[in-house]
Amino acid sequence: MKHELTKEIQGEYSYVIGPYRDPVLTVKSGDTVVAHTVDAFEQKITDESVKPSSIATLPYVNPLVGPIAVEGAEPGDALAVQVISIDPVGPQPRGVTCLQKYFGLLSPTASALSEPFPEIVKMVEVTTEGIVWDEDIVFPYEPFIGTIGTAPKIEAVNSLTPSNHGGNMDLPDVAPGSTIYLPVRADGGLLYLGDVHACQGDGELCGVAIEMPARVEIKVELIKNWTLDWPRLEDENRIMSIGNSKPLEDAVKIAYNDLVHWMVDCYGFDKWDAYFILTQVGRVRIANVVDPLYTAGAWIDKRYLKKGGK
Amino acid sequence: MKHELTKEIQGEYSYVIGPYRDPVLTVKSGDTVVAHTVDAFEQKITDESVKPSSIATLPYVNPLVGPIAVEGAEPGDALAVQVISIDPVGPQPRGVTCLQKYFGLLSPTASALSEPFPEIVKMVEVTTEGIVWDEDIVFPYEPFIGTIGTAPKIEAVNSLTPSNHGGNMDLPDVAPGSTIYLPVRADGGLLYLGDVHACQGDGELCGVAIEMPARVEIKVELIKNWTLDWPRLEDENRIMSIGNSKPLEDAVKIAYNDLVHWMVDCYGFDKWDAYFILTQVGRVRIANVVDPLYTAGAWIDKRYLKKGGK
Amino acid sequence: MKHELTKEIQGEYSYVIGPYRDPVLTVKSGDTVVAHTVDAFEQKITDESVKPSSIATLPYVNPLVGPIAVEGAEPGDALAVQVISIDPVGPQPRGVTCLQKYFGLLSPTASALSEPFPEIVKMVEVTTEGIVWDEDIVFPYEPFIGTIGTAPKIEAVNSLTPSNHGGNMDLPDVAPGSTIYLPVRADGGLLYLGDVHACQGDGELCGVAIEMPARVEIKVELIKNWTLDWPRLEDENRIMSIGNSKPLEDAVKIAYNDLVHWMVDCYGFDKWDAYFILTQVGRVRIANVVDPLYTAGAWIDKRYLKKGGK
Amino acid sequence: MKHELTKEIQGEYSYVIGPYRDPVLTVKSGDTVVAHTVDAFEQKITDESVKPSSIATLPYVNPLVGPIAVEGAEPGDALAVQVISIDPVGPQPRGVTCLQKYFGLLSPTASALSEPFPEIVKMVEVTTEGIVWDEDIVFPYEPFIGTIGTAPKIEAVNSLTPSNHGGNMDLPDVAPGSTIYLPVRADGGLLYLGDVHACQGDGELCGVAIEMPARVEIKVELIKNWTLDWPRLEDENRIMSIGNSKPLEDAVKIAYNDLVHWMVDCYGFDKWDAYFILTQVGRVRIANVVDPLYTAGAWIDKRYLKKGGK
Repeated sequence: MKHELTKEIQGEYSYVIGPYRDPVLTVKSGDTVVAHTVDAFEQKITDESVKPSSIATLPYVNPLVGPIAVEGAEPGDALAVQVISIDPVGPQPRGVTCLQKYFGLLSPTASALSEPFPEIVKMVEVTTEGIVWDEDIVFPYEPFIGTIGTAPKIEAVNSLTPSNHGGNMDLPDVAPGSTIYLPVRADGGLLYLGDVHACQGDGELCGVAIEMPARVEIKVELIKNWTLDWPRLEDENRIMSIGNSKPLEDAVKIAYNDLVHWMVDCYGFDKWDAYFILTQVGRVRIANVVDPLYTAGAWIDKRYLKKGGK
Repeated sequence: MKHELTKEIQGEYSYVIGPYRDPVLTVKSGDTVVAHTVDAFEQKITDESVKPSSIATLPYVNPLVGPIAVEGAEPGDALAVQVISIDPVGPQPRGVTCLQKYFGLLSPTASALSEPFPEIVKMVEVTTEGIVWDEDIVFPYEPFIGTIGTAPKIEAVNSLTPSNHGGNMDLPDVAPGSTIYLPVRADGGLLYLGDVHACQGDGELCGVAIEMPARVEIKVELIKNWTLDWPRLEDENRIMSIGNSKPLEDAVKIAYNDLVHWMVDCYGFDKWDAYFILTQVGRVRIANVVDPLYTAGAWIDKRYLKKGGK
Repeated sequence: MKHELTKEIQGEYSYVIGPYRDPVLTVKSGDTVVAHTVDAFEQKITDESVKPSSIATLPYVNPLVGPIAVEGAEPGDALAVQVISIDPVGPQPRGVTCLQKYFGLLSPTASALSEPFPEIVKMVEVTTEGIVWDEDIVFPYEPFIGTIGTAPKIEAVNSLTPSNHGGNMDLPDVAPGSTIYLPVRADGGLLYLGDVHACQGDGELCGVAIEMPARVEIKVELIKNWTLDWPRLEDENRIMSIGNSKPLEDAVKIAYNDLVHWMVDCYGFDKWDAYFILTQVGRVRIANVVDPLYTAGAWIDKRYLKKGGK
Repeated sequence: MKHELTKEIQGEYSYVIGPYRDPVLTVKSGDTVVAHTVDAFEQKITDESVKPSSIATLPYVNPLVGPIAVEGAEPGDALAVQVISIDPVGPQPRGVTCLQKYFGLLSPTASALSEPFPEIVKMVEVTTEGIVWDEDIVFPYEPFIGTIGTAPKIEAVNSLTPSNHGGNMDLPDVAPGSTIYLPVRADGGLLYLGDVHACQGDGELCGVAIEMPARVEIKVELIKNWTLDWPRLEDENRIMSIGNSKPLEDAVKIAYNDLVHWMVDCYGFDKWDAYFILTQVGRVRIANVVDPLYTAGAWIDKRYLKKGGK
């Protein structure tokens, strides 16, 4: 069954991911949901003269749709969320990036005595053909879901912070064609999503990718009795474990460690053999190094998972 | 001119990169050097029963050839070292990886109360066709120079530590077809190299890639008056800046910051424009997250460097 | 007025600090509250043979009493919580510390491949005269409140994690004679506390201090219109700002930065002068370096705050 | 025997600590040395109008006297350096602190896009009675040796970086009345020292304490066959282990881990008992959080080291 999560059904956006809000929609395993997301600034940057600090105040940034409950989902299960399509919507120029006072990897921090950055907004045309940066440069349209996660058991995490429930990971691999696996820790799973990016470099350097409003189609399946410590992702060629932590080496450590266990538990590898193999052919994506916790995805090509020609 | 840096000319390997040893070879800008490197364990692991701790004692690990002086190189210049070819040498199985007591990302550390890891050695056949891990798995032959650097002005850095002089970066991009740019800080530049890997995953997870002895052919050119704060790399499609630091986010920060400056100084970008563009299409390689300092390379595709259709 | 927050009034302990639970008690500014706290393991470790992993499961550790609402408290205000007294209660041996599988600064981490630590429990007699470790060693009775904080605006933070709302800071200075200032971000402020320690070293090395059930008497005052970014503390001789972050240098940075602003805003210092003075006479307490975020308190002696002999 | 290490004997100051310079002085175990140190800027800041960047260029900062060789010192031994006295010398105002462009905990970093700090110099009168900051504030005279270390085996470490050889630790406990233990890794030990501070807060916030030229009297003793992984310190009441690393939690980890081993090896403690005891009564000094590696000292009061009333 296909559900249209209209703005009327959605009601107010959520700025936390947690178990304290009633589901706006309940689906069955295997259902499809079409969600309509706004950008990270709730569409309040309407032209390049708008100062981000004038329209976005913590903790009310990065609005999410949801929660979506899945029938029968209980703690100890997992959700498999397949990304079917992501389309840009809204009037042009619909893509926005900006420089903020105290946000970004090369920016001054609020916990120091430096002067803030100037606030600069740049708006760009986004179509499925590409993102027109200027007369010389067009970025490829490589859209993904920046924030996606399930409710923790008792916590409510702000929508800017990724952790072991998913959240604001800004991982470009959460894109059409891939499936993200998320832990169920509260009844129903309680899926939230939003913060779509039209494209993004590794680490999301200045902290703001090409943000855009989007129509997102996902398929949600329930996997019973699969306890996940951290989110995982799979596409045609790869399996990826995802770590969110700080400092960044801890995120890499979490991701690789989870991947070792995935290889041992589901693919029959010996622990040391998996550790050795990832040393030689493991790959790492730095997703974000600007949010309250940093995100790394570690993956292995599926060709190395075949044992004995199987 | 092509120089053969034989073991006789080389003499003893060096375990530091610094200005305190006389050059073993002096070349002119544009000359080619063929170097013969031993593996990180100085070829002392001769079969899988050898315990690494029995043959390698700090600081005598990761032996390097050099220093190679370049005529006319003075502080404020740079060396461009083009990697022409890397061939495996020595009797089979010539590739070695291993588990050590206290080394690697998922390993216990010596500065804690955990039990050490078992010492496990794995030796594999390496040819230019691939690395035969077991009957099911063959890794691609993707060789690179793990350690390469020029002498600091007054320091002598151990051969295990990367820093702004290069060193043990374990960056898989230092491979045939690419050119690494290194700062000249002491007269002659004083180039050291070694620690060739037949292949390696991002981060060098367990701390030991497929180490092998190699015949390495490089071309060394002197670039006058180009002061580099950090190493840089270029190949047909990319320019990459390299940061070595700890925690890992600092290495990423250094690399991206240097790349912004490179784009501004050599490609005519505005500072904020470069920062924005890298946010959208910058890429990061995590090279090592196991050595005393961690290494990240940040790059941009050259297609984005063309302004006005040039 | 003095309130006795009995277990009947309290009802269930809370494992989060957030705005989603109705106050168990509402007080007026200036009122005194006597709270009865259980230890971090909810008194389930009854003898040294109990394995911590058998009785404590995340997220149900570190139980807190509260929330206590303060009449008239609104976002933008602050609470001043004066610690009047802390007394040990319950049958002897009432103090407990323990070694857990994957917790503590010198312990293996769950996100690595190391073997876990053995689970060792040590129970000790605690009186206001001291803590009897063994026949040779008595630790001084220096009790403090390990976890104290006010509700974030929309988040619910688990009781193990400190942040800018306070929480599990494990700061030994939250002791009788001192006053901690906490931000009001939700209506009523919503104060939670628990996790009393009979004594603790800097950093709380193994992750478990001398935990004990306690009778805690506090006085709560409302300070209107004082917006705090981070918790602060004051006693007879010192003012201290508190940072909670990771890595540890970020906690120190937050604390010192906040202290500079405190000196500028409330004591008339020039920004650079405050920065210089703290360089020479600032002091830092490392409170915890084992929880999900680390805690540092930076302080200055009040003698340096007097200007012109005032 | 007492040696006067005059400037004539000293010759040029050293900006590295390493084994590559001949000893300027050789002493016997038990001898006393009077050293004359210049400040970290080599006395080139002569008034408050001098910009630090105009007189100090990396790596030529933090000049050291030495190396001093100790007869019979061999790798595997340790030096015990007792600080006897530290006296300020030179014309008034002889104390200097300053704000630099990119140095200090709350300062912008060179590896970001922030604007640099203004360069501000402050000079103050220093006597053994105190440091006169302004008409209201006098800091206590609490002098110590900011940089002291022995040569690594094959490395030459710049004089700004602390590590397991000691170096620029900026640890206020290296003061009259205490003894610092340093590893001997090169023949003779090769002791270097300098960078005296008249007083300093924890962490050395802005990166520059009250720097001053000094007359330093030390007594050097050789301890045969005591292999130190990290520097240690002892005074009348405490034993302290010192870690130098980054991030700061690693420095704390190294220090506490070394202290556990010291308690086990020299005071007969069980490993877990030492770990537990330090959890309850261990103390930590954050020495510097501004240099290339950060420094923490972890100590225990000697009263807890007595077993069975001994």
